[in-house]
Amino acid sequence: MKFGGTSVANLDRIRNAAERVRLEVAKGYDVIVIVSAMSGKTNELVGWVNETSAFYDAREYDAVVSSGENVTAGLMALTLQEMDIPARSWQGWQVPVQTTSAHANARIEAIPSANLDEKFAQGMRVAVVAGFQGVSPEGRITTLGRGGSDTTAVAFAAAFDAERCDIYTDVDGVYTTDPRISSKARKLDKIAFEEMLELASLGAKVLQTRSVELAMRFNVRLRVLSSFEDPSDTAGTLVCAEEEIMESNVVAGVAYSRDEAKMTLISVADRPGIAAAIFGPLSEAGVNVDMIVQNISEDGRTDMTFSCPTDQVLRAEKAMQTAKDEGTINYHDLVADEAVAKVSVVGIGMRSHAGVAAQMFRALHREGINIKVITTSEIKISVLIERKYMELAVQTLHDAFELEKAA
Amino acid sequence: MKFGGTSVANLDRIRNAAERVRLEVAKGYDVIVIVSAMSGKTNELVGWVNETSAFYDAREYDAVVSSGENVTAGLMALTLQEMDIPARSWQGWQVPVQTTSAHANARIEAIPSANLDEKFAQGMRVAVVAGFQGVSPEGRITTLGRGGSDTTAVAFAAAFDAERCDIYTDVDGVYTTDPRISSKARKLDKIAFEEMLELASLGAKVLQTRSVELAMRFNVRLRVLSSFEDPSDTAGTLVCAEEEIMESNVVAGVAYSRDEAKMTLISVADRPGIAAAIFGPLSEAGVNVDMIVQNISEDGRTDMTFSCPTDQVLRAEKAMQTAKDEGTINYHDLVADEAVAKVSVVGIGMRSHAGVAAQMFRALHREGINIKVITTSEIKISVLIERKYMELAVQTLHDAFELEKAA
Repeated sequence: MKFGGTSVANLDRIRNAAERVRLEVAKGYDVIVIVSAMSGKTNELVGWVNETSAFYDAREYDAVVSSGENVTAGLMALTLQEMDIPARSWQGWQVPVQTTSAHANARIEAIPSANLDEKFAQGMRVAVVAGFQGVSPEGRITTLGRGGSDTTAVAFAAAFDAERCDIYTDVDGVYTTDPRISSKARKLDKIAFEEMLELASLGAKVLQTRSVELAMRFNVRLRVLSSFEDPSDTAGTLVCAEEEIMESNVVAGVAYSRDEAKMTLISVADRPGIAAAIFGPLSEAGVNVDMIVQNISEDGRTDMTFSCPTDQVLRAEKAMQTAKDEGTINYHDLVADEAVAKVSVVGIGMRSHAGVAAQMFRALHREGINIKVITTSEIKISVLIERKYMELAVQTLHDAFELEKAA
Repeated sequence: MKFGGTSVANLDRIRNAAERVRLEVAKGYDVIVIVSAMSGKTNELVGWVNETSAFYDAREYDAVVSSGENVTAGLMALTLQEMDIPARSWQGWQVPVQTTSAHANARIEAIPSANLDEKFAQGMRVAVVAGFQGVSPEGRITTLGRGGSDTTAVAFAAAFDAERCDIYTDVDGVYTTDPRISSKARKLDKIAFEEMLELASLGAKVLQTRSVELAMRFNVRLRVLSSFEDPSDTAGTLVCAEEEIMESNVVAGVAYSRDEAKMTLISVADRPGIAAAIFGPLSEAGVNVDMIVQNISEDGRTDMTFSCPTDQVLRAEKAMQTAKDEGTINYHDLVADEAVAKVSVVGIGMRSHAGVAAQMFRALHREGINIKVITTSEIKISVLIERKYMELAVQTLHDAFELEKAA
């Protein structure tokens, strides 16, 4: 059971979360609870680090920032003890959660189960583990990057072969789209790992992408649910293997990403290696290129279009100018359109259903929405459109695929 | 160098403290810096623990409460790095600071120097250690009791054979008495361990008593100084071995303790073992008995008087009533006088100077201050007086022994 920052924001909320743990213990389960820092705490600590040092030593960042989870873990253990549940707190190094040395963005390498197993055998019913943190081979404290407690939770579920991994958050599950945009958005009972992965990376901020990857790799059944609603065994959304989902819509959900920019290099020499010459420097400059489209070549020259987050436009322009100055690429102009958004439909059902793309394009066309760029994967179709049409597009596609109805 | 909570209360103060560290590094010293939590932080954490659980698991208390020092240690290391000083933070378990398992009040058992020595050999100039904490043989986090960072500092000074242990606090040294009570109070350049120990235990809250005991045992030269004044090599007060002090007044200082109560058991049977029958139960009830006086016996009965802090009077009365009910002691009445205070003169010079007690009693008599109870040790004379005369008594004794003048 993993409780995010808003679910442990104060002592009352910690008690509320502990009550949910108590229900699972009463059913006979031993429980590993992963806790985040009380909401706001991590931001406060990060703020102090940034104010102290602009180019900080990530090892010290980790030492400071990890302290928020330690506080919650101790308080949660005490709260459970007050309910007569044998519980104790575990900091990352005590488990130990062994990670790489990539401070501030470490990856979990192993979670030896011996220490917790010994205490479970001695009567401990709940291990409260500080999320988001681990220990490097050098014995320094590491953190897993923002949202890393989700990854901690999935990694523990995998290491201890847990029956389930429940992620308590401030939303009550995964929706067919953002309910703030479409009032017809419907909570999904189940969603496949692959779909969740596409939705997570498309900006549906329910789960950290890495946690979903990990869950898929180790087939950990993830349940996303709210700590603010009545607990029940069927609450929330189960993220699971495709095979567990008997019936599903062809399209599972409509995702969007608001702050996209479309960049076009006009009249680039169309020669072998040109893509590498363009996207190598962009990658080195830290630009996250998403969609790429190359126009048909004419007279040995072509236009190359790509998308990236709007706050990386300047960086992209600088990288391209440098490459031009160095003579590794040659182009006439670089045009940036910063008023675009990305809308995507996602669903494992697309693998076996043809015509989803055509249906999507028709629906957008009916509303007069022009498509600027298209990309597709096996289970996803994304389009870049004018940002002002984004909400309309989401609503239109939600209607077109009848996502308000369960399969 | 140890910096208390007010000396690291915010990022500005941490920078100020780091500046003092920089001066020592510039002189060529390798430095171990011990930091407390930012002032207020530990109280906040303790408050949360108390609110969560009235009879809390001290192991979880320690896990929660120790986090404040970890934050300061990381921020201090970052601040020093910003000054181009190779520094890193160390949490108790990383050093490791090995302690007993007496959670919330653990004692340091050993500080193996290998880990820090290795990093010093590799170029680290400053080790910033989180004070107040350690690790038990079971691998749980321990804390040393309030004010424990002083003890951490002295223990490191002893373990690493430091040239000096500088305790930075919000006062600029040890005074002949509390300057708030006597405007003539004078800062001492030097004070002997034994004197400091008596002053600390008498309520002069400059240093934790245990830290002074430890400094005396390992002959660690302690310097108490303010982090808010200009740094200089002769600032503050040096707490050191008697032999280092060439000249000193017979009386080093006048201490006081305001919230004392005088308890008298009227008409107790004067028989062998009666003292054990009285003070055994008081000790078990957690009453800190300080002074004890037994009247001359008459007809096989006597009066027994003792002092304790006022907030332990109810506990003492209950313990005595229980002992009476159980028949282990018999007394006519228990009279509590909660309006008394203790005033003491302390000085190693008393060992070789007779007449200090007489001089003290004469001075109090001249002001019409009645002495209720007297106790003496080799280097201290304490009297219990009416609380309303406490300040007058302190001023009178400071004048009588001419403490405003250096030896």
